[in-house]
Amino acid sequence: MSTKTIKDMVDQVPDLVICGRSLADFLADIEAFHGFLAPGVVLGGLMVDQAQEKVGPGVEADAVVETCRCLPDAVQIFTPCTAGNGWLKILDWQKFALTLYDKGTLLGYRVWLDLEKARRAPHIYNWYMGLVPKKDLPLEVLLDTIIKARRSVFSCVPVRVTRLYGKREKGEIKVCPSCGEAYPALQGDQCAACQGQGYYEPRE
Amino acid sequence: MSTKTIKDMVDQVPDLVICGRSLADFLADIEAFHGFLAPGVVLGGLMVDQAQEKVGPGVEADAVVETCRCLPDAVQIFTPCTAGNGWLKILDWQKFALTLYDKGTLLGYRVWLDLEKARRAPHIYNWYMGLVPKKDLPLEVLLDTIIKARRSVFSCVPVRVTRLYGKREKGEIKVCPSCGEAYPALQGDQCAACQGQGYYEPRE
Repeated sequence: MSTKTIKDMVDQVPDLVICGRSLADFLADIEAFHGFLAPGVVLGGLMVDQAQEKVGPGVEADAVVETCRCLPDAVQIFTPCTAGNGWLKILDWQKFALTLYDKGTLLGYRVWLDLEKARRAPHIYNWYMGLVPKKDLPLEVLLDTIIKARRSVFSCVPVRVTRLYGKREKGEIKVCPSCGEAYPALQGDQCAACQGQGYYEPRE
Repeated sequence: MSTKTIKDMVDQVPDLVICGRSLADFLADIEAFHGFLAPGVVLGGLMVDQAQEKVGPGVEADAVVETCRCLPDAVQIFTPCTAGNGWLKILDWQKFALTLYDKGTLLGYRVWLDLEKARRAPHIYNWYMGLVPKKDLPLEVLLDTIIKARRSVFSCVPVRVTRLYGKREKGEIKVCPSCGEAYPALQGDQCAACQGQGYYEPRE
């Protein structure tokens, strides 16, 4: 079997529109932001596309992703929601799922990689479950499977968001007596770093 | 006092280069990604600029930010590090600080908004500490103060990163008996959502 190139894949579906752009632009935007064509971001972009269509045009939608891997970038590339503007919340649950919802009504749609459906696209299933070494599944083969499968490997249900929505209040700010930096009073008498959670040590 | 427009600010410093671009492009890139010209992202971009200069050119740098607000976007706009590609780690400490470090040697620089220094730029101090209502501090005045202050309100020290670096292993994946979705075995007998941490409820 000869392996398709990305260009072959793009030429195959000239009319495909994902997140408002052609497949070529969709893939280019992923590479530009994420740094490389990660299968997880391509899948994620298709999930965003489905959620956006369900939520409908003209709705100001906020987002939740249930993993730190890939999905935050799919949302940040294809919606106005970013980690830093607060419209995207990132849960570290390692579940390949995302929700877009109307920030006014809190009604939205959750889309996830459905393992039972993914079994019918074994490359996707094996890749996601870590059942095949990277060298045995070339990126082009996996991407071609993902593009062909499109929404057939996802499930999507309407949901009402019950927490994590809205702007988080900043709360009372204190100055840490150890490091002199501002931190939320809620954390206690010292900031998190001075309480021992630091990730760095000084060097000269 | 007449308020300066963004254009006035840009025209004032035609030779200023921040994160490899003119002030006009720097501000335009922030607005395009973040959705609006947030003072926190402008400050964050100046912090990234200082950290990048210290780390030096040609170094593959990973990043840590110590707040979910604004700083994740400053890093994502001006470095190759994103939330979804794993090169940016986001701590929810609400500290206005970031670290860029060489991913090979783990040596880098931490830059933070230094409150004592910020006192000399009262608009920045008052804004950050929440001491002035938004309506009393026009965005243009605050931005002008930030651009003029530049690095004078930051401190920067060399650090060695001691945790949070590198790729996190995916670990064993299980299928949740309740929802049928994949999740990390470490979380227990059910996934986080089925354990009661869910943020949504189904609707018809």
